[in-house]
Amino acid sequence: MTDDIATLTDAPPRPAIEHALAGWARASAPSELREILPLLARPGLLSFALGMPAADLLPAEAYLRATRRALEADPLPMQYGVPFEPLKRHIVGMMAERGVHCREEQIFLTTGAQQGMSLLARLLLDEGGQVAVEATVYDGIHGAVKPLRPEVLTVPSDEGGIRVDALEAMLEGGARPAFVYLIPEGHNPLGVSLGMERRLRLVELARRFHLPLVEDDAYGFLRYDGERVPALRALDEDWVLYVGSFSKILAPGLRVGWLVVPEALVPTLSILKHGSDLDVTSVAQRCLSSYLDSGELPAHLERLRTAYRSRRDVMLDALERHFPRAVRWTAPAGGMFVWVSLPDGVDTVRLLRRAVATEQVAFVPGAAFCAHDAGDYAHCMRLCFTSLPIDKIEEGVARLGRLLTDEVRVGPLTLVSPD
Amino acid sequence: MTDDIATLTDAPPRPAIEHALAGWARASAPSELREILPLLARPGLLSFALGMPAADLLPAEAYLRATRRALEADPLPMQYGVPFEPLKRHIVGMMAERGVHCREEQIFLTTGAQQGMSLLARLLLDEGGQVAVEATVYDGIHGAVKPLRPEVLTVPSDEGGIRVDALEAMLEGGARPAFVYLIPEGHNPLGVSLGMERRLRLVELARRFHLPLVEDDAYGFLRYDGERVPALRALDEDWVLYVGSFSKILAPGLRVGWLVVPEALVPTLSILKHGSDLDVTSVAQRCLSSYLDSGELPAHLERLRTAYRSRRDVMLDALERHFPRAVRWTAPAGGMFVWVSLPDGVDTVRLLRRAVATEQVAFVPGAAFCAHDAGDYAHCMRLCFTSLPIDKIEEGVARLGRLLTDEVRVGPLTLVSPD
Repeated sequence: MTDDIATLTDAPPRPAIEHALAGWARASAPSELREILPLLARPGLLSFALGMPAADLLPAEAYLRATRRALEADPLPMQYGVPFEPLKRHIVGMMAERGVHCREEQIFLTTGAQQGMSLLARLLLDEGGQVAVEATVYDGIHGAVKPLRPEVLTVPSDEGGIRVDALEAMLEGGARPAFVYLIPEGHNPLGVSLGMERRLRLVELARRFHLPLVEDDAYGFLRYDGERVPALRALDEDWVLYVGSFSKILAPGLRVGWLVVPEALVPTLSILKHGSDLDVTSVAQRCLSSYLDSGELPAHLERLRTAYRSRRDVMLDALERHFPRAVRWTAPAGGMFVWVSLPDGVDTVRLLRRAVATEQVAFVPGAAFCAHDAGDYAHCMRLCFTSLPIDKIEEGVARLGRLLTDEVRVGPLTLVSPD
Repeated sequence: MTDDIATLTDAPPRPAIEHALAGWARASAPSELREILPLLARPGLLSFALGMPAADLLPAEAYLRATRRALEADPLPMQYGVPFEPLKRHIVGMMAERGVHCREEQIFLTTGAQQGMSLLARLLLDEGGQVAVEATVYDGIHGAVKPLRPEVLTVPSDEGGIRVDALEAMLEGGARPAFVYLIPEGHNPLGVSLGMERRLRLVELARRFHLPLVEDDAYGFLRYDGERVPALRALDEDWVLYVGSFSKILAPGLRVGWLVVPEALVPTLSILKHGSDLDVTSVAQRCLSSYLDSGELPAHLERLRTAYRSRRDVMLDALERHFPRAVRWTAPAGGMFVWVSLPDGVDTVRLLRRAVATEQVAFVPGAAFCAHDAGDYAHCMRLCFTSLPIDKIEEGVARLGRLLTDEVRVGPLTLVSPD
C-alpha cells in the first residue's frame, strides 16, 4: 500500500532536516485520502464534499458595511487584539438561544472552532493519553489530537447518535479518556441530532466518571425541524466544554469561534492561545462585532434555515429518485450533511476518483471520518446539502445516481480487492 | 511567594475539572508577571511596554480600500481559505529584499509569526526534548514550547547578539536541542542585530550538528542604519526555518505571517496547521494580498523606517538626558526595542508597579524574557520606541528618569529583599 503511493506520487526530495523532526512528524505518512483532497478543488465540479455555507447567502454587503464602521472606529482594530468585550456580550446573548445561560467571563474567543478543539485537546490530553470519539466523526478532531499521539477509543453510533450505553460500558471497563468529543446537533458526518434522553445520560456519565465532554456545536443554530433540545452545556456547566463557531452561520473566512468553559480554565487557555497565535485577528473580532451590532444576525439565520431546509428536502427527494434501492441514508433535522451507506464492498475512495473523472461530481468518502477501522465505513460517503443551489443539488445527485446504478450493477471494478 | 500571590489575587473557585487537565496545565502556576500585564492596558498610560507599530502610521484607509476590492471580487473571500497563491507570490518578492531567493512552494502561510513558531516547535520538538534559546529572548517562544515541557537550554548574549562560541561549546558538550530560536535582526528584547561573521558561524554549526535554526525575522524589514546583512535563510536553505510577519510592518490585527521552509516539510506543516485552526483567515489573506497588489508597501515601509529612526533617536537622546549615570542601554540599528540595564539590586517588576501608579508610564520588566534565572535580569527593562509619538517618548522617558533618579538615590525600597 505504502509502496503503491510512493510510486504514484511525485514526492519532493527528502532533506536531511527530516531526521530532526519530532517523533509524530517522522511517523506521519502520506495517506491516499489526503492525495485525493486536491481533486475536490477542481473548478467546475459539482461538489457535495466540503461543509461550506451557501456562497449566495454569505452576507458580503453587510460585512463590508460592518468593516467600514469598524475601520472608522477609534481605536483602530488593527493592533494586537485583546478579547473584544462587546463581541463576548453578543455571544452570551446568542447562547441563550441554545438554552445556555452563561457569563462573559466564561466565553473564550478562538481562531475558529478548530482552534477551540485544538486548545481543549492540549488543555486536557497528556501525550499518549486516551481520548474517546465516535467511530465516524469530523476529522478535525483527529487533526487536533494527532500530535499528542493519543490512544483513540471509538464509540459506536446508531440512528440516534452516539451509543451512550457503549460509552458507559467502556468507562465501566476502566477506560479513562481525557475527554469525549461529541457533536450532539447536526452531527458531522452522520447528520443525526441527539435526543434529550441521551443528552441527560451523557451528562450523568460525565459527572460520575469526571469525564470532560467537548461539545462541538458548530451546527447548533442550524436546526430545521423536530423538537429543539438544549445544548449539552445547558445541562451541566462543570463538565461540558462548549465549542461554538461563526463559520457555518456567518462566514468560515473570518476564523472566529468561541468556547464556553468554567471561568477557572480561562487563564490556562489564555497561555495556550497566546503561545499558539497570540490572539484572534482583531480586524475579524471588531468587524464581526460591528456586524452583530447591526442586529442583522437573527434574520440572516432565519434565511439560512429556510434555504437549507429546502436544500435538504431537495437532496433527500433526489436521493429517493436517483439512487439505487440498496442504498441507505440519514434524514438530518439539522446541520449540513447526509450520510449515505452504499452496499458493502463498494469502495467510496475509488468511487470518488471515478465520480470526479467521469461525472464531475464530488463527495467525501466515509474513510475520511474514521480514527481506525476505515474499512468498516469504506462503503459510506458524506454529502453536504447546503453549499450548492437547488438545481445543482438535483443535477449532482442525478449524476451520482447514474454512477452508482452502474457501480452496483457492474460491481467488481469497485469492490475492495481481498488483499 | 506562591502564598503571597494566593492571598493577593481574587482567584475564581477551582472546579473539579481542574484535576482532569493535562500534566503541564496542572503544573502551570500563576506568575506575578502575568498579574502585572493587565496594568499595561490602563488607559492614559504612556506605555513603552508592548511592541506595537505606531497607531498613527497604520494604513487604515488603504486597508479599507483593499478590503472593498477584495469583497467585490469573485469568489468572495469569506469561505474557507486555501493558501492564496498571489499572496505567496508577493511574499517571494519581499523575501528578495532580505537577500533570500525562494519559491512559492517554500512559503507556508500562518496565523501570524507566533503560529509559525508554535507550528515549528511542534514539528521539531518531542515532549520533554531540549530546545535552545538566548537567556533573554521574546517570551512568545516560551509560550510556543511550554505545553511540550522541554528542557530549555540558554545561551548567553553580548552586545553583538547571541554568543555563538557558547552555543558551539554547548553542542560540543553533547547538547542536542531540537532547534535554536534566533532573532538575528532587531533582537527582541535586546535591540541588537547580528553581524555577518556570527551569522556565518551559526549556519556552519547548523550544518555540522544538524541543528535547525528557527530565524524569527519579524523586524527584518525595520533596519534604520548600519551595514545591511542578509537574513540567515539567505545563507542556508536546508537548516534555517524562517519566520516572517506582517504584524510589525503592516498591522498586528491581521494575524498573517509566513514561514520559508524546505518544500518537503510543507505537507507535515499543513497537517499541524489544519489541526490547529484549519487555515489563515481568508478575509485577511485576500485583503492583504489586495493591499500588496496596490504597490503601496515599499513607500509605507520607507515611511515606517523614517519615523521609527527618528523615534529611536529621540529615545536614545532622552535616555542620555533623563536617566541616571549608572544606567546602561543598547543602541539598536533596527527593530523596536531598547534594552536598559539598571544598577544591580533594582527590581523592575516592583518598579513597574510604582511607575504605573505614580508616573503613569510603563515598560516590560526584564524577567518577562527569561526562561529561568530571572533574577539575573531583574534589574533590566525593555522599552519600545515605535508605538508612541515623539513628544510622548520624550515625556515618558523624563517620567521614568524622575522615578529612577529617586530609586537609585533612595534605594532600599526597590532592592530585591534577600529572602
